[in-house]
Amino acid sequence: MVANIRDVARIAGVSVTTVSRVLNHHPYVQEEKRQAVLAAIEKSGYVKNMNAVNLSTGQTGMIGVVLPFTDHPYFAALLKGLAEEARAHRKKLVLFQTDYQADQEIEALEMLKHKQIDALIFCSRSSEWQVIKPYQSFGPIVMCEEIQEDVSYTFIDQYQVFLNALHYLDQKGYQQIGYCIGRRSGTNSQARERAYRDFLKSRQFPVNESWIFENCYHVQDGERVLEEISVATQRPDALLVTNDQTAAGILIKAQEKGFSVPEDLGVMGFDNHPIAGMLSITTIELPLEEMGRKLFRQSLKQEISKEEVYVKLVERKTV
Amino acid sequence: MVANIRDVARIAGVSVTTVSRVLNHHPYVQEEKRQAVLAAIEKSGYVKNMNAVNLSTGQTGMIGVVLPFTDHPYFAALLKGLAEEARAHRKKLVLFQTDYQADQEIEALEMLKHKQIDALIFCSRSSEWQVIKPYQSFGPIVMCEEIQEDVSYTFIDQYQVFLNALHYLDQKGYQQIGYCIGRRSGTNSQARERAYRDFLKSRQFPVNESWIFENCYHVQDGERVLEEISVATQRPDALLVTNDQTAAGILIKAQEKGFSVPEDLGVMGFDNHPIAGMLSITTIELPLEEMGRKLFRQSLKQEISKEEVYVKLVERKTV
Repeated sequence: MVANIRDVARIAGVSVTTVSRVLNHHPYVQEEKRQAVLAAIEKSGYVKNMNAVNLSTGQTGMIGVVLPFTDHPYFAALLKGLAEEARAHRKKLVLFQTDYQADQEIEALEMLKHKQIDALIFCSRSSEWQVIKPYQSFGPIVMCEEIQEDVSYTFIDQYQVFLNALHYLDQKGYQQIGYCIGRRSGTNSQARERAYRDFLKSRQFPVNESWIFENCYHVQDGERVLEEISVATQRPDALLVTNDQTAAGILIKAQEKGFSVPEDLGVMGFDNHPIAGMLSITTIELPLEEMGRKLFRQSLKQEISKEEVYVKLVERKTV
Repeated sequence: MVANIRDVARIAGVSVTTVSRVLNHHPYVQEEKRQAVLAAIEKSGYVKNMNAVNLSTGQTGMIGVVLPFTDHPYFAALLKGLAEEARAHRKKLVLFQTDYQADQEIEALEMLKHKQIDALIFCSRSSEWQVIKPYQSFGPIVMCEEIQEDVSYTFIDQYQVFLNALHYLDQKGYQQIGYCIGRRSGTNSQARERAYRDFLKSRQFPVNESWIFENCYHVQDGERVLEEISVATQRPDALLVTNDQTAAGILIKAQEKGFSVPEDLGVMGFDNHPIAGMLSITTIELPLEEMGRKLFRQSLKQEISKEEVYVKLVERKTV
């Protein structure tokens, strides 16, 4: 068992308060007692509890990161940037893998309130902003989305990016465009849906609600989407797919079912993960590691800042 | 600015020690002073610092995780299991992304020593065991490898698994077998190398040092390996590849260079990541999430335990 402050006090024959004063270089300690405490520390092998040190600095050196999954390439790349920047600043990341459960987000916020972490970064969230907002008084909170509130964030202009991608498909001759997304709630997803509806309206293209596919994260989700399309009476002729994993699943199943890509179906991915290169998927590259690094640096500052990052179209063979 | 203990003391007109005593339910506080402190807490909006609570429980609720990268599917899957189990136990993970730098591992160990984390899990390591060992007196340390020491670990019998894979390639008629690995140091890698050398000896197959390919983690590493093979005078006819990403890179480049798989070159992967299914790679599935969950549970216990997990051969089309 490791010696604690009470063991030191017992060995030195002084009170715990006296030991604490010696440890914290308090001036009002008799020299005789100070010597006894120092001898007891040496004898007991006592190691100062860093949590006690934190009481005086008010800092833990730990930054919380809220994210739904760690094993998805999108969040893994974001986490890589966060972790690299944390290391450069000699800080540690505390992970909150939420599976989009709001109670897990509250737990993270409560840890900020109780000073167990110095700041909190939301890579994605389920909670309403009104729930998060009051916690800003306890330390920096940083968001990974564009939000019209007085809070720091790093963002991609999701509306404009989605609109540009739709125009690109349009120029390539597709007229029945659908899209695949993770979830429809969330600031980023709502901006994309607005872009989609505005685009259809401006081009007077048909709106077909069954061409919006939800819960698309993984390869198997893409396989499911293609299965659905293959039995549909009205099929989209192109899909804008918000991650390459799902796009890859669509391609694999398309080959099985005898759909030609890009002739029968145009497929445009997002992220430019290795899989996109391997399967020659036309995709939109997001600078995820750069986003992670920016988010981390924002978490170290009290001042509010807004940072934009920019995407890149990577033209390959699926559109 | 958030009120701290000194603000409370000032408002109540008492010493910081008195406030501390009230917060910690110390018996020797005059009722009058206690009431003044409670009123000051209410007035100031003071929130008790959880780090102070930790001083009495001796626990932080945080478990450290040492891993070289977060964005590789192997470690991402391990991290998923760890994070899920942490959530089930209402604990938090503190991430040490080391890039295999020993100083980062020491930093994690020092945080265990200073009670900033309750336990430490090594998913992989650079440091010698003799460096890690003394820190066991400060809290549970758990390893993800089979090691002949008095420490908890979850392991795969890497020697036997590698030997079985080599015998499988042998049965399929391959006689010039090489392998691809991340690094050659590390307990797991050394066990694999022993299996490889023992296998070659037992079958009296030639030893060709240039058929051992190091630094193989990603798709582009596999592409590099195939480039090297394509210009070699003596080529292996099969490769055992310790991760599917690298195996995928080998396949892509093989197609480009006109090598037939499995005829010219047999390729056997490890992990059974989604990419293996997509490219029909014969592979050995590792139960990584299960390993992560077991590692986490071991970190909560003082007693030493050894847990084995088992792999599964997934036969597809590359051998």
